[in-house]
Amino acid sequence: MTVAVDANGADLGPREVAAAAAIAAGRGTRVLLFGPAAELGDVPDGVRVVDAPVSIAKAPDPVAAVRSTPEASIVRAARAVGAGEADALVCGGATGAAVAAGVFNIKRARGVYRPALALPLPIPGAPILLLDVGANVEVRPEHLVQFAFMGAAFGRAVLGLDRPRVALLSNGEEPTRGTPDLVEAHEEIAARAAGVSDLDFVGNVEGTQVTEGAADVVVTDGFTGNVALKLIEGVSGTVLRAIRDVATSSARGKVGGALLRPALRGLRDQIDPEGPGGAYLLGLRRIGVVHHGRFTRYGISQAIAVAERGVRERAVERTLQALEAAGALRRSVSASPASVSTPS
Amino acid sequence: MTVAVDANGADLGPREVAAAAAIAAGRGTRVLLFGPAAELGDVPDGVRVVDAPVSIAKAPDPVAAVRSTPEASIVRAARAVGAGEADALVCGGATGAAVAAGVFNIKRARGVYRPALALPLPIPGAPILLLDVGANVEVRPEHLVQFAFMGAAFGRAVLGLDRPRVALLSNGEEPTRGTPDLVEAHEEIAARAAGVSDLDFVGNVEGTQVTEGAADVVVTDGFTGNVALKLIEGVSGTVLRAIRDVATSSARGKVGGALLRPALRGLRDQIDPEGPGGAYLLGLRRIGVVHHGRFTRYGISQAIAVAERGVRERAVERTLQALEAAGALRRSVSASPASVSTPS
Repeated sequence: MTVAVDANGADLGPREVAAAAAIAAGRGTRVLLFGPAAELGDVPDGVRVVDAPVSIAKAPDPVAAVRSTPEASIVRAARAVGAGEADALVCGGATGAAVAAGVFNIKRARGVYRPALALPLPIPGAPILLLDVGANVEVRPEHLVQFAFMGAAFGRAVLGLDRPRVALLSNGEEPTRGTPDLVEAHEEIAARAAGVSDLDFVGNVEGTQVTEGAADVVVTDGFTGNVALKLIEGVSGTVLRAIRDVATSSARGKVGGALLRPALRGLRDQIDPEGPGGAYLLGLRRIGVVHHGRFTRYGISQAIAVAERGVRERAVERTLQALEAAGALRRSVSASPASVSTPS
Repeated sequence: MTVAVDANGADLGPREVAAAAAIAAGRGTRVLLFGPAAELGDVPDGVRVVDAPVSIAKAPDPVAAVRSTPEASIVRAARAVGAGEADALVCGGATGAAVAAGVFNIKRARGVYRPALALPLPIPGAPILLLDVGANVEVRPEHLVQFAFMGAAFGRAVLGLDRPRVALLSNGEEPTRGTPDLVEAHEEIAARAAGVSDLDFVGNVEGTQVTEGAADVVVTDGFTGNVALKLIEGVSGTVLRAIRDVATSSARGKVGGALLRPALRGLRDQIDPEGPGGAYLLGLRRIGVVHHGRFTRYGISQAIAVAERGVRERAVERTLQALEAAGALRRSVSASPASVSTPS
């Protein structure tokens, strides 16, 4: 088992990624680390450095940069996965570059229309897997149908969900709510879910229900998903800051805040985005995990651990089996085996 | 100045709406109250009850109910506004019914493509006006352009904003991010905003920036807006509940929570959704305000106060002037002066 890791996607620099690789190596994972060898320092057994100093982590147009920079560390890491030299990809920073590098070099799995980015949202008491959070700004109904079955399969294989409750994010619970494309996707998913036993389609959920644990997997297009995830981040941050301000605005508040602090630390751990390791790139021939650029070595080592679990649990194969069982694979597979779409 | 109020849209019942009308009358507003006279009790001077016992507040298909139930209290209230017997409409509950009753009976203002629902979001320290939050599930770029200028004009007329900062909600800050329709709307708004001085177009904002006060008016389609507003409600509720749980899970936490309570009450007042009175129905020939079904007499009286302020400040006329100054009025106005679209 080998995981290819791009060392250039962390805000804290390549050395932080090397430290994460060392943590993973300590757990027995073999890591192929693509980055500037001169900056990576000593690495332990289990980590092999491939000198790839060129970074496109800050490129203004990530997709164009992936196309025009074959020597970029993220492209080389993805190519290693595509060539079978590694079993999974871990990278960080701009998701656009990650999706493009994955689609161009690892390729879409046969029968999958579009890869999707699935993000586990650490909502207290009700963690959910939200997809797509940004790989596809515009989708057709059949894409949403695949996202539903892909998300559920990943949830079963990697997240320990037995029979995931899958929902569509909409502006109302009734099956007729939403855009015409969403209504069509709803009908399709309901029909196909009725024929399989490992997924529970619970219909539409509204924003309020997302945080109430109404579903395990929430499906939406990449535009709405991206807006949603950043709103969730923004609102929880703002509320927590407002409470902290309250707790420091008076002597009485300060004492109260100090008394609450140990218990709040537990809550903070529960909603720590580094725990789940980042977003999962689903629908390729191998697993990809994209950690946030802000992550520390802990979060990046979690990303490597999730990638490894995905390989061990055969997430890709099980996803394709689930899509096939639901009759949701693209039919004209042989018509365009090598074509890749350009993610936005 | 007379405000037509539907008494059938409050979860607490028609008497709660009558109590709100009484509060408004005490401030000098004349209220025309449409509801079941037998249930409304005594009303003070300034409130005139029109017996309209038929309610469609719980109809499964609000738009169809508005069409098929001319005697419904909300339809009669809207008709009174359309006929000039009242200057503004206040109703509550299902926004679909409110939009339909408004469009069919008050009619769209000349040159406006689609009415929009604008909701003031009580974000601590950074209140924003979000539109559309549900009147139009699908929009074209020219609709978003009008929403931008309509929202800004209402902000100036009623919310005391001097030169509102207007933004488009998107999945990235760059002007090229988002769906093709959004990118087109971005270009149009930027071009038209350059020609006027009373609006500051700040471009795209992401979800995280919404809660950081990056804009005063945030424009989006009714699907994304509705998802966004319910996510904001859901996340802030979940975070506050998680903190309350923490504060009651140990003796130490309880003492801390008790010490914080007075200060938290101030925060709660700041984010109380009843303060702003509800959502504003913009783009009709007269003002409409739609309070939440859950509101108490306080929130409903605030809705009446906002409606009154809108009339006094000539919000409709000023909105049309702003659209005209920006060149954003529908050109072929005379082509379909009486046609009304069906809101979803």
